[in-house]
Amino acid sequence: MSANLKGIGASAGIAIAKAYRLEEPELKIEKKEITDKEAEKQRFEQAITQSKAELEKIKEHANRELGADKAEIFAAHLLVLSDPELLNPVLDKVSTEGVNAEFAMKETADMFVSMFESMDNEYMKERAADIRDVTKRVIAHLLGVQIPNPSLISEEVVIIAEDLTPSDTAQLNRQFVQGFTTDIGGRTSHSAIMARSMEIPAVVGTKQATSSIENGVMVIVDGLDGDVIIDPSSEVIAQYEEKKAKYQAQKAEWAKLVNEPTVTKDGKHVELAANIGTPDDVKGVLENGGEAVGLYRTEFLYMGRDQLPTEDEQFDAYKTVLERMEGKPVVVRTLDIGGDKELPYLNLPKEMNPFLGFRAIRLCLEEQDIFRTQLRALLRASSYGNLKIMFPMIATVSEFREAKEILLEEKEKLVANGVQVSDSIEIGMMVEIPSTAVMADQFAKEVDFFSIGTNDLIQYTMAADRMNERVSYLYQPYNPAILRLISMVIDAAHKEGKWAGMCGEMAGDQIAIPLLLGLGLDEFSMSATSILPARTQIKELSKEQAQSVKEKVLAMSTTEEVVEFVKETFHIS
Amino acid sequence: MSANLKGIGASAGIAIAKAYRLEEPELKIEKKEITDKEAEKQRFEQAITQSKAELEKIKEHANRELGADKAEIFAAHLLVLSDPELLNPVLDKVSTEGVNAEFAMKETADMFVSMFESMDNEYMKERAADIRDVTKRVIAHLLGVQIPNPSLISEEVVIIAEDLTPSDTAQLNRQFVQGFTTDIGGRTSHSAIMARSMEIPAVVGTKQATSSIENGVMVIVDGLDGDVIIDPSSEVIAQYEEKKAKYQAQKAEWAKLVNEPTVTKDGKHVELAANIGTPDDVKGVLENGGEAVGLYRTEFLYMGRDQLPTEDEQFDAYKTVLERMEGKPVVVRTLDIGGDKELPYLNLPKEMNPFLGFRAIRLCLEEQDIFRTQLRALLRASSYGNLKIMFPMIATVSEFREAKEILLEEKEKLVANGVQVSDSIEIGMMVEIPSTAVMADQFAKEVDFFSIGTNDLIQYTMAADRMNERVSYLYQPYNPAILRLISMVIDAAHKEGKWAGMCGEMAGDQIAIPLLLGLGLDEFSMSATSILPARTQIKELSKEQAQSVKEKVLAMSTTEEVVEFVKETFHIS
Repeated sequence: MSANLKGIGASAGIAIAKAYRLEEPELKIEKKEITDKEAEKQRFEQAITQSKAELEKIKEHANRELGADKAEIFAAHLLVLSDPELLNPVLDKVSTEGVNAEFAMKETADMFVSMFESMDNEYMKERAADIRDVTKRVIAHLLGVQIPNPSLISEEVVIIAEDLTPSDTAQLNRQFVQGFTTDIGGRTSHSAIMARSMEIPAVVGTKQATSSIENGVMVIVDGLDGDVIIDPSSEVIAQYEEKKAKYQAQKAEWAKLVNEPTVTKDGKHVELAANIGTPDDVKGVLENGGEAVGLYRTEFLYMGRDQLPTEDEQFDAYKTVLERMEGKPVVVRTLDIGGDKELPYLNLPKEMNPFLGFRAIRLCLEEQDIFRTQLRALLRASSYGNLKIMFPMIATVSEFREAKEILLEEKEKLVANGVQVSDSIEIGMMVEIPSTAVMADQFAKEVDFFSIGTNDLIQYTMAADRMNERVSYLYQPYNPAILRLISMVIDAAHKEGKWAGMCGEMAGDQIAIPLLLGLGLDEFSMSATSILPARTQIKELSKEQAQSVKEKVLAMSTTEEVVEFVKETFHIS
Repeated sequence: MSANLKGIGASAGIAIAKAYRLEEPELKIEKKEITDKEAEKQRFEQAITQSKAELEKIKEHANRELGADKAEIFAAHLLVLSDPELLNPVLDKVSTEGVNAEFAMKETADMFVSMFESMDNEYMKERAADIRDVTKRVIAHLLGVQIPNPSLISEEVVIIAEDLTPSDTAQLNRQFVQGFTTDIGGRTSHSAIMARSMEIPAVVGTKQATSSIENGVMVIVDGLDGDVIIDPSSEVIAQYEEKKAKYQAQKAEWAKLVNEPTVTKDGKHVELAANIGTPDDVKGVLENGGEAVGLYRTEFLYMGRDQLPTEDEQFDAYKTVLERMEGKPVVVRTLDIGGDKELPYLNLPKEMNPFLGFRAIRLCLEEQDIFRTQLRALLRASSYGNLKIMFPMIATVSEFREAKEILLEEKEKLVANGVQVSDSIEIGMMVEIPSTAVMADQFAKEVDFFSIGTNDLIQYTMAADRMNERVSYLYQPYNPAILRLISMVIDAAHKEGKWAGMCGEMAGDQIAIPLLLGLGLDEFSMSATSILPARTQIKELSKEQAQSVKEKVLAMSTTEEVVEFVKETFHIS
């Protein structure tokens, strides 16, 4: 009998394969008296050596399959395993107390974990997680317990797990892992993001995948509709094989558009760009036919480390992206840190409302060393491609003027020192704070372009934290208030002969696309994997028809009205 | 030699008198061995009795001078002193351990305080503060140390303190206390608010009042300019006597306008209303010539207690306000709780960004029992005066419709049960979320009136927490973005024949008043003490001139431009 689970389709596609349960082994640690202390210490040293060798392998695998930045975490784990501050107390305990190594390891690790966790500091908390992860591995070796090693999977499977950690996903082999499903997580959880970037079908947040799916049973993961079918009948399998074939065919159709421009039925061209976080992401942009990078989030350069990146490290990253994009536009957003994105080594004070706090350009205008270093790296890289720079979280015209002036100062200094700097760098800004949308006509006189950041714009316009479930009903991209602000921004840009793009989730959304086309948006920046479906949709739309609904939609009063009208008008199911 | 301190003028006026230092006595508690345990226990009981008697007196004083709601805290303190859970362990310690009562009291209290403080619950933390406050009083009695008793002051003084607690301010005798100055605090700190409501000149946040001012020395507190002059020469005193006389004369001038309507030079009438928190505040509204209550914050009814107020308790409060206002309009805002205003007994979950969270109407639409109880109390009170009801934190048209429907349902039920309900209750909303300002034309079709809440509107429009000092530079009431939104709201209201008011800080601001008059605002609601100065200012303005600058200001790009222009045009220094 087949059973169904409902979850969130986190990565499109269909997987049909045997279940492989990725389980945490139970590690039972008993305190034992040890007589041969030297032998026990040797046993401990050996477990460390084995764990290190294993981590080296996982790190290499991650490096190869996922890129250097994703492999970083294992370098951190290896460092923990070489830290005498952690290892010596274990050896001491064995010597002086005569206890077994696993017990000594557990006691020592627990002490560090609780010490680090009690600190009110994200960085220290992450260190606690590292220690916990590494300790588990060492103790498993001491106990002779097998910990799951997904990198050894050698047949086609669907992974079943409560959740997937970075260390789990890094080990997945795309050749064999057909898809996965988890108990917890949402569309933006780590595992969901990884699934999309690996293009593995996934359904997350099913609540009961691990409690209802046994090892080896046949499972269908439908990432298109968020369904998981357990032990399906042969008819059901046939049905999903057909759905899978259809989706593959559709993907093949999409693939044909990789090198096509994005043009509506009536000949209007718009630019489809991608949002990226690291130089390694460029590959996916080009494979999916991205015409530009519409948002390069530079935060990742600053994260997962214990000090600021140097100017040269940044220069290398920016240059690599520009070169790999081969002259196509690359919009780089300057550092957007603070809020939910902390940099432990900056020691920013805790804020009561971090989303309304000291972040992004606010921080950069005060900590000018950080800002100027990034700008210099960008300016130096500018001659390697088509660079555009934009500032995040601008609220007032004065802030934009100040940021632009600092940029021009650094440029002048570099040029005076004989450094080659491009002369055609466009300077723009994110529109993500309501005041800037309301004042777009004034800003349009000063910027080269706008990029609308809908995630934040919606949250501030509706005064509703987009991460807070109790007010998630107010995250309304199609609310006429949001559409009016977007329309004001686009009209203001065009009036001054500038262009307006969008780099929020909304830009790749099926219902939003006809609306945004009608409002006159010039550039749509989205996840790389959304580009081809968007191009397909836009090629079927007529700019004239899209424009004709603008006035009507802007005069509506609720989200529901807008959605119903758009679905009907543009035949979206 | 005179010396000067600079602080924040928290309450207007000038006080010249001798310094009275309100100091925390040092309580040295030593552990002693007690032989006559019975005598020691009696000594403890006596200290409790003395403390209770003292608290009763303070409570009466507070009740008489400040109103019943402000006296509540002493009722809480009296409860603590009758709690066997606190007192019995002290007596036990004396009996079994043979220690002195003050030591036993201290140990017991510390235990409770640290237990309550470690709980992640505001209510428990307040209980900890109560215990600490009460314990100090009991121990002072045991040690024979005098704790300051400001209610016994019998000559004219200026109070010097690090800060003033509610229990300090409650004891101040307006007849003798001429003014005060503190080391810490800002314009919205407890002591500042108390000073304004008591109309005592005050300068807060001087940083060094207590370290530089000795008991008995002559002090001038200039609450107009935020200056404190220590040991002034007779010329300086004469100078300030003159300034004081001038200010008194101005106040007398203002007082003549108490019963005057608020009319511009060219005959345009606007309504000057007051913001209140409790029925006791109505006295100040009428004394200051308020033409209406523009904002009755009902939160206070729900705060400082351990359960929800009953429908009858609420009915009594609303009825009292309506009756005391004698038919003048009273705009009641329904419960605006959540965010920074917690109700411990509701057990609301901690939020990462409470200002963008589950609060006000969002909470009321979900916890409908609470909402409906308040609405019934309001409807029942409606026949005793001129009631208008408004909903806080509306973000979407759907929310307003839902809230209004619930109100009408409750009205229908009451009427069906024969309860008298007014038929002319206006139903409006706060405009404090950017989406509602942007959609004001749609909302205007559904509401009877708007009241613009500038504190929140500014913080959301600029995406800057108004309590966060690091981004306080973005709290810009005169930013053209804010003025444009206000203008959109007023225009939309007028187009549908509705009225628009404002109940934020901005409505009573000297620079804002000509701007708001020019934008067409109908009702200005502010602190009661700001009404007469505002009326004076408006009587000197011409509506036509104010209107003539509207277009110019809305086309400006920065706050600085606006402020400079307004100051010059309207001769504001």
